[in-house]
Amino acid sequence: MSGAAQFSVAARAGAARAGVLRVRGKECPTPAFLPVGTYGAVKGVPPDLLERLGTRMLLANACHLHDRPGADVVARAGGLHRFMGWDGLILTDSGGFQVFSLLATSRLDEEGVTFRSPVDGRELRLGPREAVDVQLALDSDVAMVFDHCPPLPAEPALLADAVERTTRWAAAARARHAERSQGGQALFGIVQGGLDDALRARSARQLVELDFDGYAIGGLSVGESNAELRAALPRYAPLLPAERLRYLMGVGRPADVLAAIAAGFDVFDCVLPTRNARHGMLFTRAGPLQLKNARWREATGPIEAGCDCPACARWPLAALRHLFMVGDPLAILLASAHNLRFLHRLVAEARAAIVAGRDPAALPEYSGLDAPAPADA
Amino acid sequence: MSGAAQFSVAARAGAARAGVLRVRGKECPTPAFLPVGTYGAVKGVPPDLLERLGTRMLLANACHLHDRPGADVVARAGGLHRFMGWDGLILTDSGGFQVFSLLATSRLDEEGVTFRSPVDGRELRLGPREAVDVQLALDSDVAMVFDHCPPLPAEPALLADAVERTTRWAAAARARHAERSQGGQALFGIVQGGLDDALRARSARQLVELDFDGYAIGGLSVGESNAELRAALPRYAPLLPAERLRYLMGVGRPADVLAAIAAGFDVFDCVLPTRNARHGMLFTRAGPLQLKNARWREATGPIEAGCDCPACARWPLAALRHLFMVGDPLAILLASAHNLRFLHRLVAEARAAIVAGRDPAALPEYSGLDAPAPADA
Repeated sequence: MSGAAQFSVAARAGAARAGVLRVRGKECPTPAFLPVGTYGAVKGVPPDLLERLGTRMLLANACHLHDRPGADVVARAGGLHRFMGWDGLILTDSGGFQVFSLLATSRLDEEGVTFRSPVDGRELRLGPREAVDVQLALDSDVAMVFDHCPPLPAEPALLADAVERTTRWAAAARARHAERSQGGQALFGIVQGGLDDALRARSARQLVELDFDGYAIGGLSVGESNAELRAALPRYAPLLPAERLRYLMGVGRPADVLAAIAAGFDVFDCVLPTRNARHGMLFTRAGPLQLKNARWREATGPIEAGCDCPACARWPLAALRHLFMVGDPLAILLASAHNLRFLHRLVAEARAAIVAGRDPAALPEYSGLDAPAPADA
Repeated sequence: MSGAAQFSVAARAGAARAGVLRVRGKECPTPAFLPVGTYGAVKGVPPDLLERLGTRMLLANACHLHDRPGADVVARAGGLHRFMGWDGLILTDSGGFQVFSLLATSRLDEEGVTFRSPVDGRELRLGPREAVDVQLALDSDVAMVFDHCPPLPAEPALLADAVERTTRWAAAARARHAERSQGGQALFGIVQGGLDDALRARSARQLVELDFDGYAIGGLSVGESNAELRAALPRYAPLLPAERLRYLMGVGRPADVLAAIAAGFDVFDCVLPTRNARHGMLFTRAGPLQLKNARWREATGPIEAGCDCPACARWPLAALRHLFMVGDPLAILLASAHNLRFLHRLVAEARAAIVAGRDPAALPEYSGLDAPAPADA
């Protein structure tokens, strides 16, 4: 443990925890949802609005920023906080998920991965040491180790191989970070192992021996069914040390986030709220609402009564639908703001429940979350 | 004059005026620039940000809103202010410019224009009475009469015909508005006549006889050269009554706005600042800056030193360029905010000069405005 991150648990309810993460004097109450700003912005959402929505920590992607504009460019401009216009906490993902799950052209060797830029096809390279160097240059608050993250379903031999390689790479990253970090940036390990409980346990054990500032479960939300994901949560959360932050990567469906909080996870990131928003899909407590649906053409009320997001505060649903139909970028901003606010409220209400000793998975106001989407009119 | 709009001149410097427009208890100091929110939003810019940028009045387009979503939909949702989430002043353009300049399919008759929706090709209709009805349904603060606005260059006979028709239509609109308005909404007349001084004088005389709350010069910025536009400004401003607001339609190049203020115009609208922003063209006092230019790849400073817009306050130019190159909608918001703030500061500084008795066209900080754009690196 580098000592750069302090995590304290303030209250528990069953396996669920309410805590606070502190890095570089900045605090993030947990459970927390991290909006995704892949390329250095949460698409279309200005950082002052993110802050008003309740964002305390966001995620940016070292792999994408390594491609464009390059970590050196960000470093020379004063680091990622200045580059993003964001004073709050930034966690950078290492790119393990991206190079293994999203890019067909990746070539794996023992020292890392060679892949082609999805932008211009030029050859790029990331490995455990390069990913540390990139994230130190970006100067994020929390860096992630570079892991081997196979898409699911995967052969048992591949999963086992990925776990061992992830551990070797984690050790290399840990050493590199200890050698090059000026202090301040925390480093988290990532547990792999697919849906194989024995592999997950072994991966967690090996990583905990390396002593990271926090631990993530990676390699979920990468192809398995929702039932498999939900069943895995209470099995895998206890594999991670109780006194460190537990980060479940890539999960953002509201019902899944509540289940993960109940299982003992503390933070979550996902493109879902903002990507869905760009496609007109809005979160409500009664399940998803599709903005394009003709039934909203003359709807004079807000997206959801009681929501305090800027879209619900100022716009009738008919106007939001109209902005979406004419392709105004303001529709993206407002829909993204609504979905992010929805998740920030959900984790805040879960936190309040935990502090009050109640089960966060049983919040009655969210009982309609798993409802199917209404058919399009 | 309906009495719905009060305009008072607080100071003069040469032909230039510093004033205040009051409609429905809301004030707009003049000179003022009106951002364009064609379809009910200034593309990508939230209204609370517009307010912070200095917008007091904006323009929306009755013709476009008549097409989508329909004035009836806006009316049932509570009117255009609620539909746009905007409490400030709204001026609606009637659509005369659009149906004559932008649509090849328009068919003119004595009672109005039949045209096809650019969205789905269905037949739509606007005339002097329909345009009043649409704008009353939208419930904007200032409505414009429906004018016959020919693109330039135009045959003398067509210009003369357009002036006479514009006057007949203005009379019809004036009567319809007096009959149907519940009070509150102001109605402005639009002077036509192309670059023919005698026609302009006749058009102005005929409209002034009809006694509108304010007067606009339309039919400029529709194909003539910039030199012709600039030369026309001091000839046409004095044709409009000194005690009413003078609105120059469709002009937004910073140097042209300063020249128009010096000539005695009070308000201006144009898509230029926001449309240019969407193409990466940013206003600076030294002339335009193209964000895509590779010379900004590692630029660590703001767009322009001394600018107080959110983009200049928080982002290095390299980051704005990066967001633009990766196609993040946040780049549109920030570039639009910069260009709008640039024009709002320009008119505010012109106002301060007028109040101090100085020529607003000779502001030394804007002496580089007409500089050519630097060559792309």
